[in-house]
This record gives sequence, C-alpha cells and structure tokens, in this order.
Amino acid sequence: MTHEVYVTNKIMRFENNALHEVSDHIATEFPLTIYINSEEFATIVCTPEYMEELIIGFLASEGIIRKFSDIENFHLDDSKGLCHITLSHAIHSIHANHSKRLISSCCGKSRQFYFVNDMQTSKVSTTDKTITPEEVIRMKQHLQNESKAFQVTGGLHNAAISDGGNFYIHRTDIGRHNAMDKLYGHCILNRIPIKDKILIFSGRISSEILIKASKIGVGIILSKSAPTDLAIKLADDLNITAIGFIRDDSFNVYSHPNRLIT
Amino acid sequence: MTHEVYVTNKIMRFENNALHEVSDHIATEFPLTIYINSEEFATIVCTPEYMEELIIGFLASEGIIRKFSDIENFHLDDSKGLCHITLSHAIHSIHANHSKRLISSCCGKSRQFYFVNDMQTSKVSTTDKTITPEEVIRMKQHLQNESKAFQVTGGLHNAAISDGGNFYIHRTDIGRHNAMDKLYGHCILNRIPIKDKILIFSGRISSEILIKASKIGVGIILSKSAPTDLAIKLADDLNITAIGFIRDDSFNVYSHPNRLIT
Repeated sequence: MTHEVYVTNKIMRFENNALHEVSDHIATEFPLTIYINSEEFATIVCTPEYMEELIIGFLASEGIIRKFSDIENFHLDDSKGLCHITLSHAIHSIHANHSKRLISSCCGKSRQFYFVNDMQTSKVSTTDKTITPEEVIRMKQHLQNESKAFQVTGGLHNAAISDGGNFYIHRTDIGRHNAMDKLYGHCILNRIPIKDKILIFSGRISSEILIKASKIGVGIILSKSAPTDLAIKLADDLNITAIGFIRDDSFNVYSHPNRLIT
Repeated sequence: MTHEVYVTNKIMRFENNALHEVSDHIATEFPLTIYINSEEFATIVCTPEYMEELIIGFLASEGIIRKFSDIENFHLDDSKGLCHITLSHAIHSIHANHSKRLISSCCGKSRQFYFVNDMQTSKVSTTDKTITPEEVIRMKQHLQNESKAFQVTGGLHNAAISDGGNFYIHRTDIGRHNAMDKLYGHCILNRIPIKDKILIFSGRISSEILIKASKIGVGIILSKSAPTDLAIKLADDLNITAIGFIRDDSFNVYSHPNRLIT
C-alpha cells in the first residue's frame, strides 16, 4: 500500500470579498509507530513516503543502532503505520541515556551538548571538502526548484545531500527532523559515505538539526533560514561550516568560513 | 538571572561578490530540564523567557497537570535551566499512557487521534464565537507587526490569543510547540477563560498544533501557513474552525466555516 504525499480537498476560500468553494492540495500527515523487541518505542508523525529510510535514520540518530546489521528483523506494515523491529542487542543499555540531560561540566567533546546520547553519537568533522559561493547559491536554488510537493501544499521541509554538483538524495517531509532522518536512513541502507558531502536544508538550523547533521557526518550545512546561537556553538565545536540566510546573491557564514573558497 | 532572547555575533557575510565581517542578531536557544517528583521528566530547548509559563503549559499539554494547584512545589533555577517540581499526585498512572499509540478503532471521540493521552485531554469546542474576514486579516497582520524578535533574528515562532480586537497575550519561541505552551501556561497561571478566544499562530497547523489548540480550549485557530490533512480531520471532529494561508486580502477556511461571518 502506498500513501499520497498530499491529498486534494474541497475547502472554502475568501477572496475578492467573497467566500467560495475551491480545490486545494493538502500535505498528508501519517502516524508511524515503532516497536523495538516487542516494546513500543516511539510514534513519529510523518509524510508517508520512504518510511523504511525514516525509521532507520531515526534509530541511528537516537543512538539505538549504529549500522543496518544491528537490526535482525524489520517488518513495516505501512497500511497501518506499524513497524516491528528486532535488534541484535538489548535496547536498555543504550536507551537508559536516550534523553538524559547532560549536566556534567566536562564531557570531553563539547560544552554545548544537553543530551548524553547526542554527545556519544555526534562526530567532529574531519573533512577537507570546500565550497564556492556559486555552489552555495546554486544548491539552495536547486533545493527550491526540486521541491514540487512543497510548491503545491506549502507545508513541507526539504533536505538533500550533494557533492557540490548534483544532488544524490532529496527527501521531503512535514517534519524537519524526518526529512533529515530519511536522508540518514538512505545513506545507511545504501552505505553511502557522507564525510565529504554537503547537506542542504530548507528550515532553520537549530541545535537539534546541527547535531543531526553531525551524526549523519557532513562537514558543511546550507540553509535559507537562520541558525540559533546554540547551533553555532555546536558547529564551532564539531568543526562544521554552517551557512544560512542564502539568497540569490548573498548568504551568511556562521562557523568555520575557511571551507568557503572565494 | 535573565537571558537574552537573541545575542549579537560577529559573522562572515558574502555580498557583492566578497566576504566581510558583520554583526548579526542570532536567536538564543536554551535547554531547560524538568524534574518531577525527583525524576528527570523532559528536556525542552527553548527561547529563554516566560519559562515558568512554558513549563506549566507543557505539563498541562502533556496531561501531567490539569490545574496549577496540582503542583505542590515549583522551583526554577533559570541560570542552569533546571526546574524541580513536586506534584500533589504520583505521576506514574498518568505517564503510563503519555506517548502510547492509540490503536483501538473506537475511542469514542475521534478516529484521528494517535496518542491515548491526546484523546483524553483534548476538548471538543462548544463556543458560539464568530469572526469576520476583516478580523482574520487584521489579526494576522497584528501578529507579524508585534514579532520584533522574529524580525531581527529571522528564526522564531509566534502565538497569540485575542478576542478579535486586541491581543491578550503574545509569546515567541524558537520552538513551535513552546510558543503555544507559553500561552497555555499563561492562561492557567492567570485563570484566563479561553473558550471564546481566538488563537493566532505563525507556523503550519500540524496535527500536534491543532491538538494543542484544542487542549488550550479555543474554537478558532488562524495561521499564515498551511494545515495538514490530519489537522483538518481533527479540526472537523473537535469543532474547531481552522483558517490558514492568510494574506492581506485572502485566506482559506479548512473546517467549520459557519463561524466566519461574511
């Protein structure tokens, strides 16, 4: 069974001082529940496509799995939105720190992390990859042009991975995190090395998105939106170049500008 | 101790084909951890203002408290972002269903809920409140004009409560949910009746935001963005008028258009 990424509804539109019925494209939102070793783990509300990638990326991002072979059995009933997973290891040891606040003042990696789990699974980038201003602007335009579903429904986030030329993967979701997790899951499923790639994201670079980019393993993240102060501090610590506010002829570089070759 | 809603950073800006250093306003992101009855409950990353409201609204929204008097002791250390709460009841019975998927096909209220907890805490609106097209457009413009922090940092969500004339409360946060929870917390702390009020929100109306509006108790929600299909189904079931895509002379009514008086 496949689901539609958007549906067509009859709605009422107010225009020219009158209310009249029109057809409108509406983004679909689909609840997807993950069971691990027979226990309910999480429910994600998502755009119902690439759900296997989403689940794999979500579990990797949460530190539950490190590679695809950590999963012994994977059964997705996508008509009901239920996914049953058997892991090759017990979940409890990992899950104990899953969303525990990191209070210690010396964690060895960065003072900016607030979850123990994130500190354990984020990676300091070691890439030598560079980028030119023309590539920055072209990739942001490319993301917008490819975002067909967004253009008809006006309510979706987009994320893509590129080498600076073409896009390798482009994923769309109503959830910011989901779009990133789908990319991550795709890379894990297809063993795509990410270190020297560039991540392009449609939304704001919050600390959570920056941490996710670090877990995926990129050294450069591009966005048309703004980062937060915490995201910039994390980008500083994790050696990630964060570029935002990308317009057709300008952008801001918030961290590690050495990777931008002008 | 108070925190700044935004900070001023030196960043690199690419403009007119050259990179140069400029000052930029960056939205602050602050981790806030809530302990209930001495156990770690959740960490929220937020814009650090109105944190007491945020915590109260978050707990009400999660179904942990129903009124302010459910809290016996409240201690917020806002320098460290730690809040210790003692409840007058044990948390376990409520929390058992906290994020449990609702699989049953007959829940008595709506087929659209996916969490048991949401089904238990959402309210079907019974308001007779109506709204005119002029009020819809004026309130959306009002929200934009009041959003000063957004204008300087470009990365914040806004939510407000109005009677159709002036705004009663207006809250800002980097998190969509947080902005709504701050409103909710304010209303609980100040015993403000919400049934006949209007909620104005800057972001997309997802199912989670619609459910939150229902818990707060409004019958009309306005947004400049699009809703999802699941949010529209929930709005149908919960008797909420959802209006989106508000521009200076047009908007869409997605559910219960009878409250719009043309």
